[in-house]
Amino acid sequence: MVDLNSLLYPRSIAVVGASTQPDKVGGMPIRLLRELGYEGRLYPVNPSAGEVQGLRAYGSLSDIGEPVDLAIVAVPASASQDVMAQLAGNGTRAAVVFTSGFAEAGEAGVRMQDRLARSAQEAGVTLLGPNCLGAMNLRERMFATFSPIPLSGVPPVGEVGLVSQSGAFGAYAYALAREAGLGLSHWVTTGNEAGLQVADVIAWLANDPNTRVILAYIEGCRDGMRLRQALDAARAAGKPVVITKVGTTAAGARSAQSHTASLTGEDAVYQAVFDAYGVHRAHTLEAFFRLGYVLSRGRRPALWHCPDGLDASAVTPLAVVTVSGGVGIMMADRAEELGLPLPPMPEAEAEALRAAIPFASTANPIDVTGQVVAQPRVFMDAIAGVARSGAYGSVAAFLAGGANAPRLWPELQQTVATLSEDPKAAPLLLAGIVDDDKRAWLEARGCLVFREPAHAVEAAATLARAAAMEGARGAGTPQLPTSVMHADLSRDLPPGATALSEYEAMRLLADAEVPVALHGLAQDADEAVRTAERLGYPVAVKLCSREILHKSDVGGVALNLADAQAVRDAFARMEGAVARTRAENGAPVPFEGVLVARMVRGWGEVMVGVRRDPVFGLVALVGIGGTAVEIFRQTARGLAPLSRERARAMLRESRVAALCEGHRGNPGVDLDAAAQVLASVSELAANLGRRLDTLEINPFIVTAQGLVAADAVVTLRPDGISAP
Amino acid sequence: MVDLNSLLYPRSIAVVGASTQPDKVGGMPIRLLRELGYEGRLYPVNPSAGEVQGLRAYGSLSDIGEPVDLAIVAVPASASQDVMAQLAGNGTRAAVVFTSGFAEAGEAGVRMQDRLARSAQEAGVTLLGPNCLGAMNLRERMFATFSPIPLSGVPPVGEVGLVSQSGAFGAYAYALAREAGLGLSHWVTTGNEAGLQVADVIAWLANDPNTRVILAYIEGCRDGMRLRQALDAARAAGKPVVITKVGTTAAGARSAQSHTASLTGEDAVYQAVFDAYGVHRAHTLEAFFRLGYVLSRGRRPALWHCPDGLDASAVTPLAVVTVSGGVGIMMADRAEELGLPLPPMPEAEAEALRAAIPFASTANPIDVTGQVVAQPRVFMDAIAGVARSGAYGSVAAFLAGGANAPRLWPELQQTVATLSEDPKAAPLLLAGIVDDDKRAWLEARGCLVFREPAHAVEAAATLARAAAMEGARGAGTPQLPTSVMHADLSRDLPPGATALSEYEAMRLLADAEVPVALHGLAQDADEAVRTAERLGYPVAVKLCSREILHKSDVGGVALNLADAQAVRDAFARMEGAVARTRAENGAPVPFEGVLVARMVRGWGEVMVGVRRDPVFGLVALVGIGGTAVEIFRQTARGLAPLSRERARAMLRESRVAALCEGHRGNPGVDLDAAAQVLASVSELAANLGRRLDTLEINPFIVTAQGLVAADAVVTLRPDGISAP
Repeated sequence: MVDLNSLLYPRSIAVVGASTQPDKVGGMPIRLLRELGYEGRLYPVNPSAGEVQGLRAYGSLSDIGEPVDLAIVAVPASASQDVMAQLAGNGTRAAVVFTSGFAEAGEAGVRMQDRLARSAQEAGVTLLGPNCLGAMNLRERMFATFSPIPLSGVPPVGEVGLVSQSGAFGAYAYALAREAGLGLSHWVTTGNEAGLQVADVIAWLANDPNTRVILAYIEGCRDGMRLRQALDAARAAGKPVVITKVGTTAAGARSAQSHTASLTGEDAVYQAVFDAYGVHRAHTLEAFFRLGYVLSRGRRPALWHCPDGLDASAVTPLAVVTVSGGVGIMMADRAEELGLPLPPMPEAEAEALRAAIPFASTANPIDVTGQVVAQPRVFMDAIAGVARSGAYGSVAAFLAGGANAPRLWPELQQTVATLSEDPKAAPLLLAGIVDDDKRAWLEARGCLVFREPAHAVEAAATLARAAAMEGARGAGTPQLPTSVMHADLSRDLPPGATALSEYEAMRLLADAEVPVALHGLAQDADEAVRTAERLGYPVAVKLCSREILHKSDVGGVALNLADAQAVRDAFARMEGAVARTRAENGAPVPFEGVLVARMVRGWGEVMVGVRRDPVFGLVALVGIGGTAVEIFRQTARGLAPLSRERARAMLRESRVAALCEGHRGNPGVDLDAAAQVLASVSELAANLGRRLDTLEINPFIVTAQGLVAADAVVTLRPDGISAP
Repeated sequence: MVDLNSLLYPRSIAVVGASTQPDKVGGMPIRLLRELGYEGRLYPVNPSAGEVQGLRAYGSLSDIGEPVDLAIVAVPASASQDVMAQLAGNGTRAAVVFTSGFAEAGEAGVRMQDRLARSAQEAGVTLLGPNCLGAMNLRERMFATFSPIPLSGVPPVGEVGLVSQSGAFGAYAYALAREAGLGLSHWVTTGNEAGLQVADVIAWLANDPNTRVILAYIEGCRDGMRLRQALDAARAAGKPVVITKVGTTAAGARSAQSHTASLTGEDAVYQAVFDAYGVHRAHTLEAFFRLGYVLSRGRRPALWHCPDGLDASAVTPLAVVTVSGGVGIMMADRAEELGLPLPPMPEAEAEALRAAIPFASTANPIDVTGQVVAQPRVFMDAIAGVARSGAYGSVAAFLAGGANAPRLWPELQQTVATLSEDPKAAPLLLAGIVDDDKRAWLEARGCLVFREPAHAVEAAATLARAAAMEGARGAGTPQLPTSVMHADLSRDLPPGATALSEYEAMRLLADAEVPVALHGLAQDADEAVRTAERLGYPVAVKLCSREILHKSDVGGVALNLADAQAVRDAFARMEGAVARTRAENGAPVPFEGVLVARMVRGWGEVMVGVRRDPVFGLVALVGIGGTAVEIFRQTARGLAPLSRERARAMLRESRVAALCEGHRGNPGVDLDAAAQVLASVSELAANLGRRLDTLEINPFIVTAQGLVAADAVVTLRPDGISAP
């Protein structure tokens, strides 16, 4: 982990390129640090001014007489290399480089940026930027930015650490946080990321005692493993991470790529990474902040037992209490969409409510009706009753304008005060119109307030996920490629090969305890027939050759062969086809025999693949095979190796679970066993090490005995290539 | 259409059950009408008080001496019948009944409500309620409600008419409208809907000159045709309708049903109705109001040519202009999700921008970069350039905090002022932080302002749809069952039958020019063989009997028969099966022969069905057949008869279009022809008249020649039943 203490808790700051004009890029940080109360030592560096904004100016860094923790660099790009040399000589620990005109400005800029990064690294200077808007530590009133935005107000000091690749996004996020009163700990923009990446900041915030929730904005990530390690660290620390990652669609990805000039990777793979580490993803700014609010201020529901592959929100029951039947239904709709269970009110509480309001609905949504106006205490008793019943993870209550009503407010205060002191009471999420002072009073007691009723329900799902993640503290995280694998099979792979033959692939699967079609290798026609008769007809005969990947193009696949003659004919055709084929270098292709496999009968096809993503490493994919996958495009991805929980979740997401669950009178397939098959395939791929390029099984046949692999393709990368 | 003038523009109002206490249900309307400036005549009716809140009280309605336009009724449920008799006697034109304890309170209440409704109808009194929160006309300062909410403030008078089935939702909506400054014309809550339904209010607002946009909240609709007619009227008037309909999920629907105690119908069918009439659907309160804001305040984009079945937003290009690359990408992502095209900047405008800011991106999103701070005029020129270029329907611009910046604001004002006077300029949608006074200035010039950048993009899609709808003015609306059909085939249907035989169903399809498998009817085995030989093998043989609907249960379906012997065997088996079967009344089942049909070869299966929805009438459904429909549940619905445009859209929504479009090397099927087949099936169903219950074709086989029906089932309802 990169240490950001010198950057974010500096005891001394030098501003290189300090301007006497407080509104210039080199002047603003001095103005901000002085006006807003930074208490460390501040050294303007300016060779041609004796004084800068009332402070003594230094001609160079070395004139300062002490190594500074942080240098803020506001000099032209052409001068940056010199400045970096000075920083190195002076023992400076961290540098923020505002300057633009680097990688974002074409080829020459890329080279200049590479040099800057190299010298920073050699000198041990932690580098933020270039082309960034800087950083802030709100608690220390440390404003290393040239944005004037803090002049118009500072958000409250809080526990949300915010890191953004984009300066403009960061500035807007700052303004929105201020407006929403969302308390921030740190604010960091990484710009061109020649040194620090968003991932480094996340990893550091994961260990910062003043940060409890991390909000990150990324456009693209060049070092996937760094991001994975950072998310792993946050998860191990029990700190929720919210990420907005743009470029979700083809149009967005195109502009993201041209904007950041970096390989941004496939959005679906990012999603797999986020799923693996329990990241809360936000697709809008509004959701980004709302998640920050919910996660930093919201009490956690109790943990419910969560079977394999289910999201915590799918097992954490919610009580919806409402003064309006209609709004209660809207909330129930949202709860069902999110998978939150809505069990009815327990009998004792239901009876109490019905005794007070006979027409109240004690199903869930619990509708106290318009009677709340006449009987506010009944409403509050219903809320307190369900919150304490132990039957619910959270309580979402719609109050309309009730909280501001003079008769209801004192009752609400009393209820919230009592519940907030009861650690066993379910957290309370309110929706309605609430005056600012009342809202602050409620929030101080862990009671979140929303204008939109659906948001109270979404908060319940978010808090259930956060509680599960914090409770698990890193359990079930997929292994990083840096960790020890169960086995490394790469040394057993044929040195120069770009693929395995299907027979070799089938053997590997069988060794990994993945069910495969009964099969054997045959070198001549007689052996092929003997093998077929041992396995039982009908059989498939497939050409085996590492050089011929697309077997069917040369007639190398014969299915449903019913007798010996058919097997002989197929063998002869394939032998002939190989004899007519030449390798790329013109050499004859060796004939390695044929794979004879018993045909597998079932009622559906599943495809499973593992491929190497250039950013994040091995990614497993599952989907319903045949034409469905192309038409519905409903596949699920996960980082390999998969945990069985994740494999199970992927079966559900891809609808393979629906195909397996006793579909159309077919017997149900054991989903745990199917998840284990998927996990085993992903583990095999991981064990194949750096050589593996892709492993694809298409189809797995769905049979009464479970998934059986009927085909396997393994492609390899050359020796000596490094991961991911 | 029900006339609501007496209800919403009353010249005189009587309050029956008027209370001397202004905060009681019978006192509040008097207080509101007096304090808030209602200018008509107001008569408190109270037999035991001489004066009510400073007004002379009348002992009874007849003491008033004139028939009043509107009576507000605040008496106990038990007295309501008497009051209705008085209203009738007095010539009262409309009544608002606040009283609860009717249908929502059990069986006795249902009967009481029925009586109330009947007497109102007989007396010609327009009845709102009972169990409702009343109505308001903001322009006339007419507050016929017992909710105290107007006392704390009234929304501005505007052009949005709001109608809500739920009083609590209506009150909350009122408070949110007031807070958002959304201008309202009328506010109506319909409660138990013994008289007026939400549909009646929509229909009336469609003709109200003071209303331009209609916002409606419904929980369930008992009279689907009334709602369809109302939506049709709004569409014909070119007034957009926004609907929030709760109960979208199973859990929500269950609570909606128990809450309203009415048959609410399937949510997917509501969606089909909304699609048919171009309704903007909102799933959250936030979206409900935002749509109201966008539609009432937003300028419309020019109309782009829209091919069959495409949504207008899919052809109306959007320019995204941004000061932040990242936020621009977020906006592009949202645009792509919504289908909005994002063509690059035209060359002339692009050149101008690059000349000013060399690193600006002139693709779309158009990124003027942080240079906007130094060169605000360039940003404004870029916006004005694209808005005037004719290449875009709308321009969505992200300004971050720029609008409030002293250097940018005058430039923005000048640009917006000029564009607002140019009717050919594309409307401008801004995202950013904007002070209230500046926001009001912008909105007054048709320039909408959003905090969330994604919302500016969504507004562009909404306005494109609104422009298309307003431009079309009712064209393409599906016919209501009340209108004349092309044909009425119901009289030709067998009188007592509950189903047609498959042969009969196939004949009907063929007559309607729907392609069907080649087929013939055979009464004996020889004829079956002759038919098979005439059609060509392989054939299917299927039992024909109106009494046996589930043919396969009795072995009545034989597929892929390859020769005469197989046909003979199948015939004998089916004849035997019929001989062993008894009808429900124990009588022998007549053997009507077998259908012999040539097997249709293709590469996919499509299912098409039309069924009678109890609320809305005939609904057509299309989906990919086989197991896919059960696993992916991706079907599309539309009201029958379908226009070819709607049929085309349904092919896309259900992914059938993907199956038809040259999938996996198969030749592409003409999608227009496929849409025509779907439209013809739906028209046939409509032409079958009241007798039709369901018509299902499963499968249609996808072949190189298009869709061919391989199976057809028609079930009938008894004679003499009325629609829907």
